[in-house]
Amino acid sequence: VRQTNLSGALIGKGQHRHFMLKEIFEQPEVIGGTLKTMLNPAERTITLPYLPFDLAGIGRVRIIACGTSYYAAMVAKYWIEQLARVPVEVDIASEFRYRSPPLEQGGLAIFISQSGETADTLAALRHCRANGQHCLALVNVPESTIAREADGVLETLAGPEIGVASTKAFTTQLTVLACLAVALGRARGALDRAAEAEVCRALAEVPSRVADVLRDDSAIRAIAPSIAEARDVLYLGRGTGYPIALEGALKLKEVSYIHAEAYAAGELKHGPIALIDDSVPVIVICPSDHLYDKTASNVQEVVARGGRVIFLSDRHGIARLSAKVAATIELPEVASFVAPLLYAIPVQMLAYHVAVAKGTDVDQPRNLAKSVTVE
Amino acid sequence: VRQTNLSGALIGKGQHRHFMLKEIFEQPEVIGGTLKTMLNPAERTITLPYLPFDLAGIGRVRIIACGTSYYAAMVAKYWIEQLARVPVEVDIASEFRYRSPPLEQGGLAIFISQSGETADTLAALRHCRANGQHCLALVNVPESTIAREADGVLETLAGPEIGVASTKAFTTQLTVLACLAVALGRARGALDRAAEAEVCRALAEVPSRVADVLRDDSAIRAIAPSIAEARDVLYLGRGTGYPIALEGALKLKEVSYIHAEAYAAGELKHGPIALIDDSVPVIVICPSDHLYDKTASNVQEVVARGGRVIFLSDRHGIARLSAKVAATIELPEVASFVAPLLYAIPVQMLAYHVAVAKGTDVDQPRNLAKSVTVE
Repeated sequence: VRQTNLSGALIGKGQHRHFMLKEIFEQPEVIGGTLKTMLNPAERTITLPYLPFDLAGIGRVRIIACGTSYYAAMVAKYWIEQLARVPVEVDIASEFRYRSPPLEQGGLAIFISQSGETADTLAALRHCRANGQHCLALVNVPESTIAREADGVLETLAGPEIGVASTKAFTTQLTVLACLAVALGRARGALDRAAEAEVCRALAEVPSRVADVLRDDSAIRAIAPSIAEARDVLYLGRGTGYPIALEGALKLKEVSYIHAEAYAAGELKHGPIALIDDSVPVIVICPSDHLYDKTASNVQEVVARGGRVIFLSDRHGIARLSAKVAATIELPEVASFVAPLLYAIPVQMLAYHVAVAKGTDVDQPRNLAKSVTVE
Repeated sequence: VRQTNLSGALIGKGQHRHFMLKEIFEQPEVIGGTLKTMLNPAERTITLPYLPFDLAGIGRVRIIACGTSYYAAMVAKYWIEQLARVPVEVDIASEFRYRSPPLEQGGLAIFISQSGETADTLAALRHCRANGQHCLALVNVPESTIAREADGVLETLAGPEIGVASTKAFTTQLTVLACLAVALGRARGALDRAAEAEVCRALAEVPSRVADVLRDDSAIRAIAPSIAEARDVLYLGRGTGYPIALEGALKLKEVSYIHAEAYAAGELKHGPIALIDDSVPVIVICPSDHLYDKTASNVQEVVARGGRVIFLSDRHGIARLSAKVAATIELPEVASFVAPLLYAIPVQMLAYHVAVAKGTDVDQPRNLAKSVTVE
């Protein structure tokens, strides 16, 4: 019997129609709860739980995961390389375990799994342990096999996730990974006190900003019926917006069975632009950051070829856009570092509302299991 | 004016209906010609052209490219890590250039581009040169900007590629990268003489085996009309079969405008399996190798959910399969190392025949340009 500290309120569906919707709406609370275990908002510092190795000695990071957790790993790659200036390699667990890549002694290997029981991720962990890596588990279930077999554990306080399509597990994984990037940056001397404070301030605001996004889901709900009619959908993003596009496409696939696919926006001209016509909605993740102009230029190209763009940006980004898009979804203006935590929300909501419009079984999509504990 | 050593026969369409088909059929010749510049078939050794740095000192490789060239890079990652035991990171050029990842001095950075003019790849090259990397160009046009600005050049002797969808450029890129993996393995002491001879023997046979595949395209032609009716197609593969699946999906997208998407077969259960029904053909790359059983088990799962599988394997692999698949495409039995060079061919042919069945403009697909020389 597993003892849990979570209140009973997290188990039922409450006033929500589906667990997926309930779990989407829990995100301000569970991101806040997860942050609280590491972030001191007054001092604007991050302190990780005890780890049995010295972060200052980590010169290389590898992150291994499957599915949604793999997309969290991709976001973390950008974050860690930026803040800690340590090279990060991400691997799909099922590819890593049979590839047996060369591993340098003393590297940090991080394994992300909501359940902590994902078969391929567990096998990858065992391979890394046997090959001199410091193994760190990032799980939602601290009693799980992956947590038990790792050298150290970081925990997402997402509470039980019942919907098969992961939502709050993903954003709490991102929350922990953001804190890890800061801690690694500080330990490696790549991030000074002022920069740490800046990131901490932005992180501390995330729960409120996520709540803002959730309060205003009418724009997304309004778009859902038109997406529900589509057979194919493309998602585009750059930088940390690219894994958010991948996660958005996966959510839509999982719960609505629409063939959604994501591309790094810069790859559009290298092939997928051939798919563009007025029957394929193109969902673009485009916060106002140093990549804005490049992505906005890709939007122009899509629109010029008759594509129907749904543009996710902040007020400033929407105001600057000259292309005629089919719809816009406005998000709060936030520091670019935390943008993926915010942009993850509307793509979840869109997938949910489209699935409801289509009448699929949102919480138990066909063919899918919650945890993939066999290969 | 560019002087070329290629015969005029490589410029016209010859007896072929489209440049794409002509270029597919040129592959035995251009792979053979490219191999000849590096492979000594009698001694079973590989000798690269002169490079202004010592391969023995290379402890880390990064490969940067876009589109089809990026998938060649992904294959090379598996090859180099396996033969040379050197960690390899692959990057989409448009993501790399704006990410400014940390680079260790003295690393080898390889830039793959058919034209040698791809804007994002060129920008990535300039960033790497400015940051202490040994820069190696892999191009089809040795007079190109990327070749001129790199420290060293490896050349594909594909001849002019006119079809917008790359075919022979891809397989000659793979040819050069295979030779590079061998040379790096020898230089690093990870590959002994006997192992080198073994790989060389397999490589020397590739042109003949590719010709065998091309002689027998009736199975593929027979399948094309049923794929032409599909709106969505999935491609699955593991190991080096995964990038071949990605390239197959890209080819189909480019020339037939069908929404094709590839997944690492192990990721199937983490989401995309929700898409499976009898309207979505699933094309599986599955040579008889150490990954065969795992992929065959994924085929079982797809078939159990009503999926229509087109199974690409060798005689042995097809005989062992117990799942009821819709069609099989038999390829020659070859050493697992060279399998991606062979499996690249039927996915090109399938894309071609489907496009012809649909009546699209095969050589000039809508929205696409041959070289992406602007961002």
